[in-house]
Amino acid sequence: MPVEAVGYEDGAVRLIDQTRLPDEHVVMEIRDLETLCEAIRVLRVRGAPAIGVAAAYGFRLMSDQYLATGGSDVESLRSLLRETGETLARTRPTARNLFTTVERFARVVENDATSAEELARDVAHEADAIHEEDRRLCQAIAEHGASLLPQTAQVLTHCNAGALATGGIGTALGVVYEAVRQGKAIQVFADETRPLLQGARLTVWELERAGIPVTLLCDNAAASLMSGGRLDCVVVGADRIARNGDTANKIGTLSVALSAERFGVPFYVAAPSTTFDLSLATGAEIPIEQRDANEVAAAAASSTQVFNPAFDVTPADLITAIIHEGGVVRPPFDETLPRSLVELGVHDPGTP
Amino acid sequence: MPVEAVGYEDGAVRLIDQTRLPDEHVVMEIRDLETLCEAIRVLRVRGAPAIGVAAAYGFRLMSDQYLATGGSDVESLRSLLRETGETLARTRPTARNLFTTVERFARVVENDATSAEELARDVAHEADAIHEEDRRLCQAIAEHGASLLPQTAQVLTHCNAGALATGGIGTALGVVYEAVRQGKAIQVFADETRPLLQGARLTVWELERAGIPVTLLCDNAAASLMSGGRLDCVVVGADRIARNGDTANKIGTLSVALSAERFGVPFYVAAPSTTFDLSLATGAEIPIEQRDANEVAAAAASSTQVFNPAFDVTPADLITAIIHEGGVVRPPFDETLPRSLVELGVHDPGTP
Repeated sequence: MPVEAVGYEDGAVRLIDQTRLPDEHVVMEIRDLETLCEAIRVLRVRGAPAIGVAAAYGFRLMSDQYLATGGSDVESLRSLLRETGETLARTRPTARNLFTTVERFARVVENDATSAEELARDVAHEADAIHEEDRRLCQAIAEHGASLLPQTAQVLTHCNAGALATGGIGTALGVVYEAVRQGKAIQVFADETRPLLQGARLTVWELERAGIPVTLLCDNAAASLMSGGRLDCVVVGADRIARNGDTANKIGTLSVALSAERFGVPFYVAAPSTTFDLSLATGAEIPIEQRDANEVAAAAASSTQVFNPAFDVTPADLITAIIHEGGVVRPPFDETLPRSLVELGVHDPGTP
Repeated sequence: MPVEAVGYEDGAVRLIDQTRLPDEHVVMEIRDLETLCEAIRVLRVRGAPAIGVAAAYGFRLMSDQYLATGGSDVESLRSLLRETGETLARTRPTARNLFTTVERFARVVENDATSAEELARDVAHEADAIHEEDRRLCQAIAEHGASLLPQTAQVLTHCNAGALATGGIGTALGVVYEAVRQGKAIQVFADETRPLLQGARLTVWELERAGIPVTLLCDNAAASLMSGGRLDCVVVGADRIARNGDTANKIGTLSVALSAERFGVPFYVAAPSTTFDLSLATGAEIPIEQRDANEVAAAAASSTQVFNPAFDVTPADLITAIIHEGGVVRPPFDETLPRSLVELGVHDPGTP
């Protein structure tokens, strides 16, 4: 079984400090909001779904502690939880699920609970529900995706879209875990994923820990690997997907997709429906964050100019299929994607 | 003017210790063969042409020292130079120009010189000639290549095919230096070139030192750069070129070529005629060296499996033109390449 990135036990948020992987496997037991916020800010927990779950347990932590320290006034607890939401919302600017979590608790806080105990129960329930929903999303994506892998498969992935990035078994790596569970023989190739090396540090670690064979390679060697005919498919996650299927994901994904097209390797994107942004007609409308030069420039002079985008956009025509919790969607995506999301009940057929 | 990677002055081989770049610019003054061989072995001097020149000066060093220490017997000097060749040939297995140099001195040693002074003069002359020939090759490639660059150009390169890799101004970077000399406004983008970071460490350093604007990027960001329309062309060097134009070069070159094709960016290869191997029909016949896992695995567990090829092969159909000292060669390369080398007088029209 894959590792659990984040959980809640004995009145503490438990999370793996991913900044210390792979050298040390440290599980933090967090009992105060400040430490949790710092963990989110400095990427001890990362991956939008995992951050969303960690934030949810932040609310639960505050509410459980309120009771444990003798608090009993429901309005005081409401006020404490509102402050908690404001504090969590300031940790990272772009992680989508963080804000979904904060908004969900804003609704819980304004419910009709008449005692602190009742409100705390609702908060605990909401936190557990957010985690459980993410587990189920991952599992559904995994099952649909696993059906695409042959009985014996060599699979390339980029960055880390695994258990460490979610509240469940991951998206792209969830597909691998489920295929292995079904008895398929899967060998993973993991791009190291410069500049922050999430592939080398995190994907390799979590797969080795789960006993799944994994081979590390530099990002720039993926084309060579594919040219040698050694790959059955590519599976990656996504940060945002436009209505036409254009997919923003970690920098380097576009290169992998171009190589896959050249060498006839199927290229799959695995992501929950929350990743889709049908208000964007194409990937050209997805804003791309430029990150700090010092992530790249370590080996060069510190004054060196650096081009360091965090994401790139893979055009839909390079994507063989997109896997979400509702199934496997194939081109033409501008027709099939909105329809699949309507069928899933997460998109209003009246809107574009 | 670009830096000089290797030279000979006051009875010493002078070379920049490239393992200490970019942090320290140390010029080694080498006065014994052992130190020179170590420098070649551990990549203090790298790039096949630069190694060839360094080895040539190794012969000159031994012969000059023989005279300086009172030696006067031509046969003893011959014997010393033969040993020198054997020692130098053991430093690195694949650098082509190293063996060309050793073979050239094997012929000099067997010439009809009748005194140690005369033989030493011939050795010095041959060493200087090898360096001068490499300078001229670089300059000729640079001039042909510069004609391909517009008056204002953004140019991407991969690895280091610059002054640090040759006895002259480089091949791919020679094109840039010459274009700048002609008054063109050139902005270079340098791939960092994992795993050994020759782009980040060497290309950025030598261009900054020459006052040419350069921006560093991770290898996996080149496709993103091109998709944004920010690039006028790619220029790279080559390690070996087959008869049909298929080009082996530093790992990652193939990815750059695929991105260039997708986004309509001209892709140029700049290399001296000595790089061509017309005995190979296609790139499939070029052997690809697999290198040590620990070049890549630093960030992962030490036992991690690694795929680490040193080179990849860019198929000829992705190459817009190949620039050698005889001119700019365009497809169909299987016709134009052999013809251009015959015209240059370096290939016998009777052989394939």
